Amino acid sequence: MTKATHSLVVVKIGGSTGINLDLVADDVAWLTQHGSAPLVVHGGSALTNEVAQLLGHPPEFLTSASGFTSRRTDRRTLEIFQMVYCGQVNKGLVERLQTRNVNAIGLSGMDGKIWEGPRKSVIRSVTNGRTVVVRDDYTGKVERVNTVLLRRLMQDGYLPVLTPPAISYDGEAINVDGDRAAAQTAVQLNADALVILSNVRGLLRDYPDESSLIREARTANLAALTDLAGGRMKKKVLGAQEALSGGVPKVVFADGRVSRPIRNALDGNGTVFRG
Amino acid sequence: MTKATHSLVVVKIGGSTGINLDLVADDVAWLTQHGSAPLVVHGGSALTNEVAQLLGHPPEFLTSASGFTSRRTDRRTLEIFQMVYCGQVNKGLVERLQTRNVNAIGLSGMDGKIWEGPRKSVIRSVTNGRTVVVRDDYTGKVERVNTVLLRRLMQDGYLPVLTPPAISYDGEAINVDGDRAAAQTAVQLNADALVILSNVRGLLRDYPDESSLIREARTANLAALTDLAGGRMKKKVLGAQEALSGGVPKVVFADGRVSRPIRNALDGNGTVFRG
Repeated sequence: MTKATHSLVVVKIGGSTGINLDLVADDVAWLTQHGSAPLVVHGGSALTNEVAQLLGHPPEFLTSASGFTSRRTDRRTLEIFQMVYCGQVNKGLVERLQTRNVNAIGLSGMDGKIWEGPRKSVIRSVTNGRTVVVRDDYTGKVERVNTVLLRRLMQDGYLPVLTPPAISYDGEAINVDGDRAAAQTAVQLNADALVILSNVRGLLRDYPDESSLIREARTANLAALTDLAGGRMKKKVLGAQEALSGGVPKVVFADGRVSRPIRNALDGNGTVFRG
Repeated sequence: MTKATHSLVVVKIGGSTGINLDLVADDVAWLTQHGSAPLVVHGGSALTNEVAQLLGHPPEFLTSASGFTSRRTDRRTLEIFQMVYCGQVNKGLVERLQTRNVNAIGLSGMDGKIWEGPRKSVIRSVTNGRTVVVRDDYTGKVERVNTVLLRRLMQDGYLPVLTPPAISYDGEAINVDGDRAAAQTAVQLNADALVILSNVRGLLRDYPDESSLIREARTANLAALTDLAGGRMKKKVLGAQEALSGGVPKVVFADGRVSRPIRNALDGNGTVFRG
């Protein structure tokens, strides 16, 4: 099979500190001018924590029985989340791309129901071995992606820049994991690759020792890798798994702090996952 | 001429306290179900002042020689502005509409260059008779509206919810007046009406005495009305003038605190401007 002229790459830009958004934007602009069609998804976690603290509503996190952590998202947290993700970070990226002559269009998963799915009715959080049931949380997951709208925008020359929250089947804003949302987007758009940029080189066997980079990962080993991966990496591995099982041929975890971060990732520098 | 089945109404929702967004959303939903095609533009001024204060970057305002006030928009203010306008307020409205089965799509004027125009190279501000020149301000005005994108979205069944900032010809975010941006949007989309909802009944001869409502205004008297209108109303009158001279047949300033606020305005309750 010959390589498609316009290969579609979904690029997830993490929300941790250290990622260089100017270098990422440079690379997105380069790719759009060289026959690739990137679609950007981003987070905003670290900045949300900071702003929540400043606004007097400090962040809290819940841990599920299986060891996944998620942000406690009450109504006030949801507002702060939207301020940072949909406001400051999304429009900051759109501006970086527009100044580089890329006609970016920033959208949350709520807009035009781009990311739709169920809201969790209850969340069970484990603290010191005790399970607490949380009911007023606005968290869920992406099941449906509005690929008609996304394809239309891309065909018309726009570069979508997507961010949580998503929208529930009842029309409520729901906090969803950005990596898993990016994975679903890559799956439903039949993307050629999913690149997940963070502030480390990839999946590390011995975090934070960057020399312990795992260069290649296969689906068969993902369960072990999920256990290995601590903290936020755990959900990224789950996202990788979902992208691969959904047919995305290539998933790469790579460094968002370096120049040409996306090309670097596509060249195989980072952790390359294969089905 | 028979009335078009789908009359296009641009509705500007002010950013002052007191406007009831739930009632506005109810009315937008009713209109979309009864043959009208509203397009929403909103502000966020009062909340921006509040958040700016909380984040330790209190708001400042500049006054031009002709007496118009505008927000001092340095880089940090721009970020806070985007947090509130594009984040909290925009997504709050999108959620209100989505829960009412309206497929809203929230966009800033930066996204897809929906509102494009020049950034002011300098701003001259008058304080106590002295003129101060401000150079690092991100303020401008809307000249071009991406009507192709807006029409496409509306034809595909989405309801655009637009908000400042706009984008400069160099791709920078620029703070623009929401009322004037709404007016430009109404002009370039050939809208049938522009409704500007605020926290008063309309243009008042003797602000804040609501019994002094001016029920009808004609272009010939607009200069006098502009002098009459204090504070933020001054720019709303300028917006009305620009909409009328651009061919919008009907502009109404009306009450955003009441039920059915848009239908109320279209029925002539408020200040009705005519060319």
